[in-house]
Amino acid sequence: MQALHLSPEGLRLRSDTPPPKRQDGEALLRITRAGICSTDLELVKGYAGFAGILGHEFVAVVEAADDPAWLGQRVVGTINLACRRCSTCVGSGPEHCPHRTVLGIIAKDGIFAEYATLPEVNLLPVPEDLPDEEAVFTEPLAAALRIREQIPVAPTARIAVVGPGRLGLLIAQVLALTGTSVTVLGRREASLDLPRALGLSTGLAPEAADDAFDLVVEATGNEAGLAESLRLVRPRGTLILKSTFAGRASVDLTKLVVGEIQVVGSRCGPFAPALELLHRRAVQVRPLIEATYPLADGLAAFEHAARPGVRKVLLEVG
Amino acid sequence: MQALHLSPEGLRLRSDTPPPKRQDGEALLRITRAGICSTDLELVKGYAGFAGILGHEFVAVVEAADDPAWLGQRVVGTINLACRRCSTCVGSGPEHCPHRTVLGIIAKDGIFAEYATLPEVNLLPVPEDLPDEEAVFTEPLAAALRIREQIPVAPTARIAVVGPGRLGLLIAQVLALTGTSVTVLGRREASLDLPRALGLSTGLAPEAADDAFDLVVEATGNEAGLAESLRLVRPRGTLILKSTFAGRASVDLTKLVVGEIQVVGSRCGPFAPALELLHRRAVQVRPLIEATYPLADGLAAFEHAARPGVRKVLLEVG
Repeated sequence: MQALHLSPEGLRLRSDTPPPKRQDGEALLRITRAGICSTDLELVKGYAGFAGILGHEFVAVVEAADDPAWLGQRVVGTINLACRRCSTCVGSGPEHCPHRTVLGIIAKDGIFAEYATLPEVNLLPVPEDLPDEEAVFTEPLAAALRIREQIPVAPTARIAVVGPGRLGLLIAQVLALTGTSVTVLGRREASLDLPRALGLSTGLAPEAADDAFDLVVEATGNEAGLAESLRLVRPRGTLILKSTFAGRASVDLTKLVVGEIQVVGSRCGPFAPALELLHRRAVQVRPLIEATYPLADGLAAFEHAARPGVRKVLLEVG
Repeated sequence: MQALHLSPEGLRLRSDTPPPKRQDGEALLRITRAGICSTDLELVKGYAGFAGILGHEFVAVVEAADDPAWLGQRVVGTINLACRRCSTCVGSGPEHCPHRTVLGIIAKDGIFAEYATLPEVNLLPVPEDLPDEEAVFTEPLAAALRIREQIPVAPTARIAVVGPGRLGLLIAQVLALTGTSVTVLGRREASLDLPRALGLSTGLAPEAADDAFDLVVEATGNEAGLAESLRLVRPRGTLILKSTFAGRASVDLTKLVVGEIQVVGSRCGPFAPALELLHRRAVQVRPLIEATYPLADGLAAFEHAARPGVRKVLLEVG
């Protein structure tokens, strides 16, 4: 089958990959649509040292499974493969299992391929009237929703999302669902057109006042964006780190301590409510699609996704 | 009067300082006892660019005040001088007023002197049977108690305090009051003798396992201690930054985001419960006293306080 392989030599499209063998408890998935996210771009740059088939945002059809009810079902799937037995799984959830593998990220082949496998327990059925190109946003939308599980978001809170990219715009839409005022901040005027079209407030980050927001979500993943975000959060306010950061960064600890700021790292979120919001069309995802490439043009798709200011690039498979 | 002045030229003992003039609403304080803390040592190194009389941990006797009930009263005092009217004061407390001055730290002469002034609203009477050398710990003990105002501390939580210094030992004692298991971690065996004598669990920080604690309190104030603390906190755990950090430091953001760690800056705390705990002898402070110097030997006291592994150095005034 065709698949996008990452190795120390870089990303390559290979046509000689044997289809994966399904283990007990796993489903064999025929991938139909996939999304490229910033974590994939970081992995290509060497983050986490992953080697294998890349990709973790997908829609697929179940081709084989232990439970026949899954057969032919269109599905999305959570990406952490956990033991679900250890004290971390029980106490903090499967996303933090120390024994976990992670689809296309840690020691488990991903879904930029014609076929992939995933435990049945990780799967969720996609509603019939939700098309692939919308359902493929379930994983990043779930990550945006994770914030709502971690901290209370008051409907009167002044909220900023720093970074008007594909993830930032999902986060801003999710937070705006409380009726809260959400401002999307970018560095260039042109980057604010799309958030404005989505009905969000916008502003240029360098023009925003110090301490202007109760809650700031960092969605740039770079050190300059992090510094800006910390500058914008008020004393005793909250800063959410929502982007993948590869390694270390310099942080203004004086502001953090003197301002008694709360900083919260945020990663994978709940799929069921994300599917529900997509199904209800409560969050707009079609305007976030930049381009769709066939899997055979996967390298060109990656090159496109890595350009600055680009929205979501999808892969059509099969 | 005698006073310890900080200027760009450094710390100097001067005998030619005129006693401060009391403004409306202020009390004139005759200082009797004072404590040197790590923030004072950072200020001498240039943190916050302060110039003036240093010092903010004190016990004093009120010599003059608007309200005659204060006259002759032995007092301690909170250190933030706020407008108490702006939206920050109302919403986040006087400790975060953007218009504030801070005793011996920001634009307000401190208390390493024979006399000082402070708003009456900042004062608290010291119980008669609580001696000066214990009451002088009210300010740092309040800072330790601040943690209990910021986050819930479960009696079953596994807690580590990294840094067995004067502040770390107050924090560990305060957290142990819930019946929680608290482990004080240091880098050298010898630094663990005092926490052990105080009845606390101890360990060598480098020997503690990754992710071993639900709650970690960073009380070293240095970058190595911060890195160690982040290493020790479990996924979805909490890291409290309790020390003054001067400026920026490098932080492992991958651990913070992937582990969904909550980091909380923590500064000034509530004085009344701190006085109450001292009064009840629920926290031991006498073993934390390293030495007491007369104000006239203030420079020697600072030199002593700056040595590694040293406990609290006090100044006796008047």
